[in-house]
Amino acid sequence: MAVYDCMTFLTDYGLEDGFVAACHGVAARIAPTARLIDITHLVPPGDVRRGAAVLAQTVCYLPPAVHVAVVDPGVGTARRAIAVTAGDSILVGPDNGLLSWTIDALGGATSAVHLTNGEFWLQPVSATFHGRDIFVPVAAHLAAGTSLEATGDPISVADLVVLPAPTSRLHDGEAEGEVMSVDRFGNVQLSIPAADVGRLGIGIGMPLLVRCGRRQLTVPYLDTFAAGAPGEIIAFTDSAGLISLAVNAGDAAEQLGLPPGAHVRLSHAHAG
Amino acid sequence: MAVYDCMTFLTDYGLEDGFVAACHGVAARIAPTARLIDITHLVPPGDVRRGAAVLAQTVCYLPPAVHVAVVDPGVGTARRAIAVTAGDSILVGPDNGLLSWTIDALGGATSAVHLTNGEFWLQPVSATFHGRDIFVPVAAHLAAGTSLEATGDPISVADLVVLPAPTSRLHDGEAEGEVMSVDRFGNVQLSIPAADVGRLGIGIGMPLLVRCGRRQLTVPYLDTFAAGAPGEIIAFTDSAGLISLAVNAGDAAEQLGLPPGAHVRLSHAHAG
Amino acid sequence: MAVYDCMTFLTDYGLEDGFVAACHGVAARIAPTARLIDITHLVPPGDVRRGAAVLAQTVCYLPPAVHVAVVDPGVGTARRAIAVTAGDSILVGPDNGLLSWTIDALGGATSAVHLTNGEFWLQPVSATFHGRDIFVPVAAHLAAGTSLEATGDPISVADLVVLPAPTSRLHDGEAEGEVMSVDRFGNVQLSIPAADVGRLGIGIGMPLLVRCGRRQLTVPYLDTFAAGAPGEIIAFTDSAGLISLAVNAGDAAEQLGLPPGAHVRLSHAHAG
Repeated sequence: MAVYDCMTFLTDYGLEDGFVAACHGVAARIAPTARLIDITHLVPPGDVRRGAAVLAQTVCYLPPAVHVAVVDPGVGTARRAIAVTAGDSILVGPDNGLLSWTIDALGGATSAVHLTNGEFWLQPVSATFHGRDIFVPVAAHLAAGTSLEATGDPISVADLVVLPAPTSRLHDGEAEGEVMSVDRFGNVQLSIPAADVGRLGIGIGMPLLVRCGRRQLTVPYLDTFAAGAPGEIIAFTDSAGLISLAVNAGDAAEQLGLPPGAHVRLSHAHAG
Repeated sequence: MAVYDCMTFLTDYGLEDGFVAACHGVAARIAPTARLIDITHLVPPGDVRRGAAVLAQTVCYLPPAVHVAVVDPGVGTARRAIAVTAGDSILVGPDNGLLSWTIDALGGATSAVHLTNGEFWLQPVSATFHGRDIFVPVAAHLAAGTSLEATGDPISVADLVVLPAPTSRLHDGEAEGEVMSVDRFGNVQLSIPAADVGRLGIGIGMPLLVRCGRRQLTVPYLDTFAAGAPGEIIAFTDSAGLISLAVNAGDAAEQLGLPPGAHVRLSHAHAG
Repeated sequence: MAVYDCMTFLTDYGLEDGFVAACHGVAARIAPTARLIDITHLVPPGDVRRGAAVLAQTVCYLPPAVHVAVVDPGVGTARRAIAVTAGDSILVGPDNGLLSWTIDALGGATSAVHLTNGEFWLQPVSATFHGRDIFVPVAAHLAAGTSLEATGDPISVADLVVLPAPTSRLHDGEAEGEVMSVDRFGNVQLSIPAADVGRLGIGIGMPLLVRCGRRQLTVPYLDTFAAGAPGEIIAFTDSAGLISLAVNAGDAAEQLGLPPGAHVRLSHAHAG
């Protein structure tokens, strides 16, 4: 019966419509004293992997909370609605993998329920807006002190849908990975942890060979993008501990033509 | 002298500038304990009908509040600034029809004032930013307990400017309407209530004939867009109770070339 | 040891990622009762002048607060992190001029520190996300009652980096200035105060000669853009007290081809 004074909210609803505000309103009616932090509502429509990555990389900086995430291309189909306890928080959303990387980031799920108790839903439930009608009202009730058990049927945490983790492995003197995301600055975040590059013996100040598709280029591995010369492509360890490619005062994603999901390999420059 | 612990805010100010924040600041100075829920600030500039539709479709999910809405292409001209009580809320904005559909959604206006008492304004009042200088400060004073009567001169609710309702009628075996809006997913919301389609005897699972301009197409009427095959155009009842056209994992507005305001007719597919 | 119940936040982080939310989360953990007003997060990446202008034009409407601003192309380099007291507020950000116009708007700096006390930072500090790891946690500690002196080493307010003020002068019967910004409506804000135009003897209702590059045009100087005929370019005093060029129901920046920084001169139309 813990009470949470914070909720967070991530969706692909966009900001042009009243969708997000309707959810804020529903939450405010049920849990009027809870603070609600918007994570983002600009996940590309239906992009579950992108939503999963943003949530997992942000959650450690948020207070203990009931986190609601809705990127739900299967809304209205048989996919389950779930609530999961992990660490000191509760996660609420569709059981399509969206929550899985965040569950890992919080140390793993300790319990889970299939949301089946309509008593905590906004009735009548629409077929297409479960954020407003199921996820947010249930989350707000949880924040206000309703027990997890009351909201549905217990399910095994081993049965939750898990999103395949981004490719990342050390292999034959190379760190292999994929483009996780491109941020507003055009910085290209790879799925390769800085620790893996370290394991290859590559340290700050050393040249790094980057291979993507048929292209290969050698870039310096620096402390920060601002340490690069203007226009120079560099690698750095980003704020999530992952290797990112950047151009000081420029757009690396555009220069490199690297979209999310693209395969990238890093190694010692002299290995090229 | 009711006190409201919630305000809401809808504008066409955009998010690039400090306009919205200046209004938040003004509200926080006058009513520091009121929660302020942003509905949207991305109404297309000057698009009163769009602002009116978003507000009217969202308001039922919001707590009792002082709702401020500013889409005001006539700012600085003779159009009146008004505050209106409806249901358990107060609406504040320009008297250009922006509030009229929301007044209906809340059950009709019970009283109204022309905002003429400069005591509650931010002085000096600019000619072009009445959101910051008139609407938000008056709304915040109302939230903090100022009586409606104190803010201006009573006017007849029958004199308020009313926006023509979206076209929607049953006629000759057809439901006629117009495109209300296109959301971020490319879903095309029509002004036709699902109830009207039901009155034509068309139920979930049946084919629906859609006519727009010279085009006509037959689409299935399904529970949700996710029930459609990928790429298939379908009709469904959206979260506002209106018929919407959608493409599962696609953009119906783009495929159909249907902008807001476009005329659409729905009927039994065999009637085509 | 003042305690602030309000923080504000301006960045160029964008809204697609979790960057802003991570900062909100960090603030909420340290100062859970402080209200956090977002000013904007859509400053063009690295555009320090634009960030400085938005903050300076907004701050007067905000409550006394700890204002955090991060437009920081030099993050991770030798530029200092600072906190500055001015008026009834505290400003926190990089010492790159971003805060300087706001310091002026608040009446000048009264004290300043170089943020060197890592005790108030989020450890380990990343090289590229000082908003999350230094500026916001320090600001939240200041809001919660930590003294300015505790956060670092005192520095002379005379040593703070100052951004060159926008060009604006009266010269030879002309008011010269530059384009400060273009808002969402396409209104072109000039750095020329309405007071300067008044000093030239040009009043509302009189024609104004506008010269930009090789072009010159005569426009009416009106109360508000809504007073112009549809499609007509007009000048008006905007909500910041500056001369702006606008088109009623149109986009002046597009019609005039005037980007931020462009040089503009205003004078009596008969002087043309």
